[in-house]
Amino acid sequence: MTEHATVSSARDKLLFTPGPLTTSASVKAAMLHDAGSWHFEFNDIVKRIRERLLDVAGVSREAGWETVLLQGSGTFGVEAVFLTCVPPRGKVLVLANGAYGERMAQMLAHASISFETVRWAEDCPVDAATVDAALAGDPDITHVAVVHCETTTGILNPIDEVGSIVKRRGKVFIVDAMSSFGGIPIDLEACRIDFLVSSSNKCIEGVPGFCFVICRREALLACEGFARSLSLDLLAQLNGFEKNGQFRFTPPTHALLAFDRALSELEAEGGVRGRNARYCANHAALIAGMAGLGFEPFLRPDVQSCIITAFAYPSADTFEFSRFYRELSDRGFIIYPGKLTEVDTFRVGNIGRLFAQDIQQLVLAIGAVCKEMGVSSEIADWSARP
Amino acid sequence: MTEHATVSSARDKLLFTPGPLTTSASVKAAMLHDAGSWHFEFNDIVKRIRERLLDVAGVSREAGWETVLLQGSGTFGVEAVFLTCVPPRGKVLVLANGAYGERMAQMLAHASISFETVRWAEDCPVDAATVDAALAGDPDITHVAVVHCETTTGILNPIDEVGSIVKRRGKVFIVDAMSSFGGIPIDLEACRIDFLVSSSNKCIEGVPGFCFVICRREALLACEGFARSLSLDLLAQLNGFEKNGQFRFTPPTHALLAFDRALSELEAEGGVRGRNARYCANHAALIAGMAGLGFEPFLRPDVQSCIITAFAYPSADTFEFSRFYRELSDRGFIIYPGKLTEVDTFRVGNIGRLFAQDIQQLVLAIGAVCKEMGVSSEIADWSARP
Repeated sequence: MTEHATVSSARDKLLFTPGPLTTSASVKAAMLHDAGSWHFEFNDIVKRIRERLLDVAGVSREAGWETVLLQGSGTFGVEAVFLTCVPPRGKVLVLANGAYGERMAQMLAHASISFETVRWAEDCPVDAATVDAALAGDPDITHVAVVHCETTTGILNPIDEVGSIVKRRGKVFIVDAMSSFGGIPIDLEACRIDFLVSSSNKCIEGVPGFCFVICRREALLACEGFARSLSLDLLAQLNGFEKNGQFRFTPPTHALLAFDRALSELEAEGGVRGRNARYCANHAALIAGMAGLGFEPFLRPDVQSCIITAFAYPSADTFEFSRFYRELSDRGFIIYPGKLTEVDTFRVGNIGRLFAQDIQQLVLAIGAVCKEMGVSSEIADWSARP
Repeated sequence: MTEHATVSSARDKLLFTPGPLTTSASVKAAMLHDAGSWHFEFNDIVKRIRERLLDVAGVSREAGWETVLLQGSGTFGVEAVFLTCVPPRGKVLVLANGAYGERMAQMLAHASISFETVRWAEDCPVDAATVDAALAGDPDITHVAVVHCETTTGILNPIDEVGSIVKRRGKVFIVDAMSSFGGIPIDLEACRIDFLVSSSNKCIEGVPGFCFVICRREALLACEGFARSLSLDLLAQLNGFEKNGQFRFTPPTHALLAFDRALSELEAEGGVRGRNARYCANHAALIAGMAGLGFEPFLRPDVQSCIITAFAYPSADTFEFSRFYRELSDRGFIIYPGKLTEVDTFRVGNIGRLFAQDIQQLVLAIGAVCKEMGVSSEIADWSARP
């Protein structure tokens, strides 16, 4: 990977993370070109990407939907929605059952936007009845924001049920679908979503560099004059695309070329359903393999997504995460640390250019490392589970 | 460039723009790897990039300097400095002689930060005496911001003289060195710079995806609690790097791998001085070649940088920029439109992986296109010059 390494590997390590992910060789090869960001050929690609994202979302411009691409990571996109779309006297209800919900609250605090946070335990999905009560109790609330797949645990929140309540109460509905969009089918109309945010390096399997917001055109046009940031002004960004097809400020041209290729590969895999089938197969292989080693997922199966899975540390005294991580890295597998507040966990992602056989090899390596570390079978300590 | 093009070229068109630029094949090839953003090997590269940027700047951590990398385009970096570093009752004096100075004012207006703009004509450099008078007249001003090379015209502003005045008055000095850093020597200490902003896809010749701020550590640490944005919080970003070596939010991993390679290639070229020599040679070839076709630069030579040059449209009625642009594009050369408010211009950039022979080929193509368009020699209408 680096010119400074004394001996470089023939293959990149596989990334079992929530992103950046392992991408196909052809997606990376699409970056071997320099494109002019003002140039009409490049702008045609940007236009095509915006249209293809609507196709992936199953919505259309004719039905009032738009895609806005924005430089930066996914977090920039979520913050851009808040900074652009909440009116000066608006108030956001944040639904949080993990680190990414909490991050939304941090953004709002930084921007001095009024907000209220309703919290659930990290192993409990958000529920619509609680949201309804919160909205009933605070008429100042104008917007509701939730994370679809909270990658802290991999839990899936019921955005359809929550969306119905949000709309019945007449609020704007913002969904952070960072790690789920493209990998789990989402019916934006049925979920009553106004703004959905995701990024280039998640289930579309592109490289990191930008994020995108799929939104109801009317909802975005209604935000004229609210923007608290020039760079993160989504409405100005839309106006820029409509005026001359360009990003207002320098776009990550190579990441966009890669993304265009990634969209073709998503299509070739059968779209969101095809990709979801692969991720579900990866997840099933992981759960089965890890069960064989005595590891059980942190979450109950009915709320667990196919995107990423958290496992509690084994109870053996000889288990040490940093060594576990390094040993797996030495074997070519990169896993992810946990992010839970109450239980020590590590995480394994199933997304990116990974197949069930990659998962099986990871499981074999985990078994071998556990053996070396003196962490035997039937290792997990389920008493740690809340 | 695109899989949808009916016939694709063997070579990318050369970009004579202010960025994104033509980069070396080896810089692009460095992106053929997927790196984990949490992984120690990747974090070693991030650390090395931050250190190497200080070397390029000719400053050191021991002398109190830091580099903060931030996702997004260069504009995100300039805005991040304002949103992070101006205290609640602070006021910024913006020095503007082009579109990028004006953009600073737009950022401050969006963020509801107090500011004043002093303007110069687009062909006049900012001058220290006017800045001194402005500071004397408004004691509320806490920060002064200027663009080093204003790519609207390619004019170079005297940041050394301005910096002395700014420091004598005890203000914080912010320099947008987007298109000059790495290509024109800058003595940060002598210029009394507190915050310098540039981006990955300019004179370091990396690909777009992130920007960086080189700053005095004490100046940044003094900004605790001011940040108006989570994503654009430079101090939190620094704290993140110092805590665990990581970006707080997903970094553009591929763009960072390319940048690390680009830094090696800058070093191999003899650092900033070596690169500056090539850009100066490019510029000289451009001026000589264009003079032969009857084109004269918009700016006087003594204020013109080697980075980018604006030329007024020829006076011939048959000249039409969009056709001129397309004809050059068909020949494999991408030039840049003008951005001046009073004179119609086009621009030619000298930066990126371009050599004098590339410039000479561009000039030949411009001559051929002018002939085809019926725009003969001695074409430029200098009466258009203010």
